Amino acid sequence: MAKMKKQPRPKAQTPKGFRDYFGAQVTQRAHMLRQIAEVYHHYGFDALESSAVETVEALGKFLPDVDRPNEGVFAWQEDEDWLALRYDLTAPLARVYAQFRNDLPTPYRRYAMGPVWRNEKPGPGRFRQFYQCDADTVGAPSVAADAEICAMLSDVLERVGIDRGDYIVRVNNRKVLNGVMEVAGLSGDDKDAERGIVLRAIDKLDRLGFEGVRALLQAGREDESGDFTKGAGLGDEQAQIVLGFMQAKRETGAATTARLLELVKGSAVGEAGVSELETIATLLDVQGYNADRIEIDPSVVRGLGYYTGPVYEAELTFEIKDEKGRPRQFGSVSGGGRYDDLVKRFTGQEVPATGVSIGVDRLLAALHMKGRMQAQEVGPVIVTVMDRDRMADYQAMVAELRNAGIRSEVYLGNPKNFGNQLKYADKRSSPVAVIEGGDEKAAGIIQIKDLVLGAQIAENATLEEWKERPSQFEVPRDQMVAKVREILQGQSK
Amino acid sequence: MAKMKKQPRPKAQTPKGFRDYFGAQVTQRAHMLRQIAEVYHHYGFDALESSAVETVEALGKFLPDVDRPNEGVFAWQEDEDWLALRYDLTAPLARVYAQFRNDLPTPYRRYAMGPVWRNEKPGPGRFRQFYQCDADTVGAPSVAADAEICAMLSDVLERVGIDRGDYIVRVNNRKVLNGVMEVAGLSGDDKDAERGIVLRAIDKLDRLGFEGVRALLQAGREDESGDFTKGAGLGDEQAQIVLGFMQAKRETGAATTARLLELVKGSAVGEAGVSELETIATLLDVQGYNADRIEIDPSVVRGLGYYTGPVYEAELTFEIKDEKGRPRQFGSVSGGGRYDDLVKRFTGQEVPATGVSIGVDRLLAALHMKGRMQAQEVGPVIVTVMDRDRMADYQAMVAELRNAGIRSEVYLGNPKNFGNQLKYADKRSSPVAVIEGGDEKAAGIIQIKDLVLGAQIAENATLEEWKERPSQFEVPRDQMVAKVREILQGQSK
Repeated sequence: MAKMKKQPRPKAQTPKGFRDYFGAQVTQRAHMLRQIAEVYHHYGFDALESSAVETVEALGKFLPDVDRPNEGVFAWQEDEDWLALRYDLTAPLARVYAQFRNDLPTPYRRYAMGPVWRNEKPGPGRFRQFYQCDADTVGAPSVAADAEICAMLSDVLERVGIDRGDYIVRVNNRKVLNGVMEVAGLSGDDKDAERGIVLRAIDKLDRLGFEGVRALLQAGREDESGDFTKGAGLGDEQAQIVLGFMQAKRETGAATTARLLELVKGSAVGEAGVSELETIATLLDVQGYNADRIEIDPSVVRGLGYYTGPVYEAELTFEIKDEKGRPRQFGSVSGGGRYDDLVKRFTGQEVPATGVSIGVDRLLAALHMKGRMQAQEVGPVIVTVMDRDRMADYQAMVAELRNAGIRSEVYLGNPKNFGNQLKYADKRSSPVAVIEGGDEKAAGIIQIKDLVLGAQIAENATLEEWKERPSQFEVPRDQMVAKVREILQGQSK
Repeated sequence: MAKMKKQPRPKAQTPKGFRDYFGAQVTQRAHMLRQIAEVYHHYGFDALESSAVETVEALGKFLPDVDRPNEGVFAWQEDEDWLALRYDLTAPLARVYAQFRNDLPTPYRRYAMGPVWRNEKPGPGRFRQFYQCDADTVGAPSVAADAEICAMLSDVLERVGIDRGDYIVRVNNRKVLNGVMEVAGLSGDDKDAERGIVLRAIDKLDRLGFEGVRALLQAGREDESGDFTKGAGLGDEQAQIVLGFMQAKRETGAATTARLLELVKGSAVGEAGVSELETIATLLDVQGYNADRIEIDPSVVRGLGYYTGPVYEAELTFEIKDEKGRPRQFGSVSGGGRYDDLVKRFTGQEVPATGVSIGVDRLLAALHMKGRMQAQEVGPVIVTVMDRDRMADYQAMVAELRNAGIRSEVYLGNPKNFGNQLKYADKRSSPVAVIEGGDEKAAGIIQIKDLVLGAQIAENATLEEWKERPSQFEVPRDQMVAKVREILQGQSK
C-alpha cells in the first residue's frame, strides 16, 4: 500500500452565507410549517415537492433584478446541460405544471414548502439558503381564486398564533395601477422605462413618504448622502394622478373602489381592475372576512414584474422596536398575486395562476416576539451514571421512563466526574436528573433532582427558602416513574 | 425598448435522475418522518438541520467507492472555494460537531432528516436526490450508545407500523471480524488488498451463498456470464476460519458470542470485540429487547470502510415477490455502526461516534406493501358551480364546510361544462360533490352526491341495487354540513 501524503486538515466551516439549525430552531419551524400545511390542505390544496435541482433553461430569468440566466442562482454544468438549485418555488411549479399538465387536475391547487437557494452576497440576517412556503392555484381564471388565497392567508396567520387585529391582509390590483398609468398618459411601449420608475417609486412609500415618492415621480430625488436618483419626469398633473391612486384608500372597501373608479375613468383595463376588486370584496364578505382581516389598499404594488392582476400581502401590525429603539410595525411576512405568463414560457399557452409565498423566517421571528415560542425546548430527563459497572441498571431505569412516555436518556459520556454530568444536564436544559449510587442501590432508593427548581433556588433563594423547598427527593426505586412525572407536571404549570 | 429576439421554448423536464413528489407521496413521507423524529426525540436526541451546501473540502472523500473528491457529488466553484451538495448526513455532522464542539453538549445526540444528492448514473428506481433520516451519538465511547441505537431502531420500526416479528435488528462487531482476520493470518498493512476482498465477499453472502463466498475467499469465482472475479487467495484452513465466522450464529446470543470467542482466541482485538457484543446483549436484555427484536448475527458486516466497532442493520423479514414472482424477504431498510475517525479529520482528535441511517424510500415502500398506507389520499369535498353569477353563494357554502372542519373547495375552473367538474372531482378523489342549481336555490335545497358510493354502484351494481341505494341526496340548504359529514363518516368506516 502506498504511503499517504499528509494533507492539511480541512476547515470545519459552514460555507459563507449558509447556516445550520439546531434543536428548537428545527422543530419550531417544522411545527409552524405543519400548521400552515394543514390550513392549505383544508382549502383543498395538494402537496408538491419538486426536485431541488432544475435545468437552468427551465428556471429561466424570473429572478428579480437579474438579467443573465445564471446570475443569482447556484449553477453547474452537467454533461450538456446546465443545472441549478431552485431560487424559489414558483418557477418549479410552472415547470411541473407544464410537464405534467395532462395528468394533473385543472385547476391545479398545490402547496409547497422547502429550502430555496440564492447566489447573492450574504449579509447580516441574509442567507443563501432559506425556506419558502407557497400555495398556488394554476388554471383558475376567476378572481375567486385570488379571494380564496387571501382568506386562506388570514386563516394561516391565526392558525400559527397571530391574533386577529395583529395582522392585516391587503389587496390591490395591478390592472387598476395600469389604468392609472394610462390615464396619466404613461401607456405604450415607449413609456416602459417611466412606468418602471413609477412602480419602484410607489413601492418606496413606506420609506420615503409621499413627498419622497412625488420627487421620484417628477424630476428626481437627492437622498441624505447627496446621491441623486433620476425621476420619471412626470408633470404636476400626472404625478398628482399617481399620488391620488396611492391615497385612494377610504374607510370601507366600497368607498375605496368607488374612489378608484373615478381615478381610472376611461381606461378599460383600469375599470376591469376595479370591477375585479369589487368581486373579491364581495366574495370575502360572504365568507365573513371583513376589514379587520382583509382590506383593499391601493398602496400595495409588490415589487415583482410578473404580476398581472390582483396582488396581496400580509402585514403584521403590532409594534416592535427597530435597531435604534424606535417603535415601528413588524411589517410584511407574506405576499403574492396573479401571474398569467409563467407556464406560457413552456407551452405557448397562457395559463392563469395566482399564489402566495410566506416568508418562513420572518413569520417565525414574529412568533418569537409575540411570546408564542420559547427559544429553548425542554431537554430529556438524565439518568446519571454513578458506577460505570452498573450501566445495565441505568439502562433498565431509562427503559422504564421511556416506556412511561417520558423523554429520557442515560448519560453516555465519561462518567468519572459527576459535575460534568450535571453540566451536561444543564446544557441540555434537562428538567430532572435521576441518581443511584452504591448506597442508594443497597437501600433500594434513588435520588431525583428537580433541576428547574434547583436553578431557581440557586439564583434567588435565601438559605431558609433553600431548606424549605428541597429540590432533591429521595424515593423508593419503584416510585421513580411516579415521582419524575409529578415533578415534570409541576414544572409545566 | 429593443425588440426581444424570439427564443426557443424551454423544455419542461425534471433533470435526468431527479423527480417530483405529489400529494400523498409528500404527506405520507412527512408523516413517517414525523413518527421517526418522535422516537428519536423521545430517546433524548435533538434535531439538527445542516446546510444542504458544504465546501468540498469539508465533505472529504468518504463517499463509498469514490477516489476523487468531486466524483459522486454535485460540485461547483464559487470564488476560491469549491462547494457541493451534501451526499449524506454523516459527513455534515462531523463538520458541524468539529465547528461547534465548544457550544454543543458532549455527548452530542442529534437526529437529522432531509434530502441528499449523489452525482451517480441514474437508473430504474435510482435517483440522484433522495431522503435520509439519521440518528447519531457523537462523543460517547461506551457501546451502551450502540445498544441504545439498536433499541431505538426497533422502536422506530414498530412506531411506523412494522409489526414485531416482521423485522429483526442484527448486530455484529467489526473488531470480531478483524480478530478473525488476524487469526487467519490476514493482519498487517501488506494484507490490505486481501482484507478488502474478504470484506466484499462476506457482504455478498445473500446473493452468492456459502460456496460462492468460499470461491471468492480462495482462487476466485466465475459467474454465470463467464466473467471471472479474482479471489483473496486464502488457503483451505484460512477460508474455513472466515466461513466459520459467518456461520457462527447460534440459537441464543450467549451461544453465539461463546462460538465467536473460540474463533478469535488469541487475538486481542477479536476478544475485545466479543466482549463488546456481550455488553450490548446484556444492555438490550435488561431493557426487554430480546431475540425476537434484536439479535447478534456475525454475517452482518456493512459495506462502508469507515466502521470501527459495532455495526448493525434492520432487516424486514416478511415475504414479498421479486420481479420474477419468486418469494424473497423484503430485506434491509436501515444500517449503521460505530465510526471513530470522522471528526478527527478536522480536529486531529479522535472522537467516538455511532449512528444509524434509515432508507426512507425503502421503508415507505415496505409500509405500502404491508397495507399501512394507501396510494391515494382522500380529496376535498367539491362545491360545484352551476351558475357562474352566483359564485358568492358557493363561496359562502364552502366557508360553512371549512368552518365545520371539512376539507373542501369551490370548483374554480371554467364551469360551463358540468361533466368537467365531475371529472375534476374524480381526479381529485373527492368523496362528495355539492350541487346547487337555480331550481334548487329557488326551492331552498341542495343536491349532495356521494362520489365513493356512486363509483362503486357504477362499477358493480345491478339496476335494482342502483335504485335501492341512491348515491345522491336532496336536503334542505341548512342541512348541508350535517349531511356531508354523515356521508364522510359512512365512507371512513
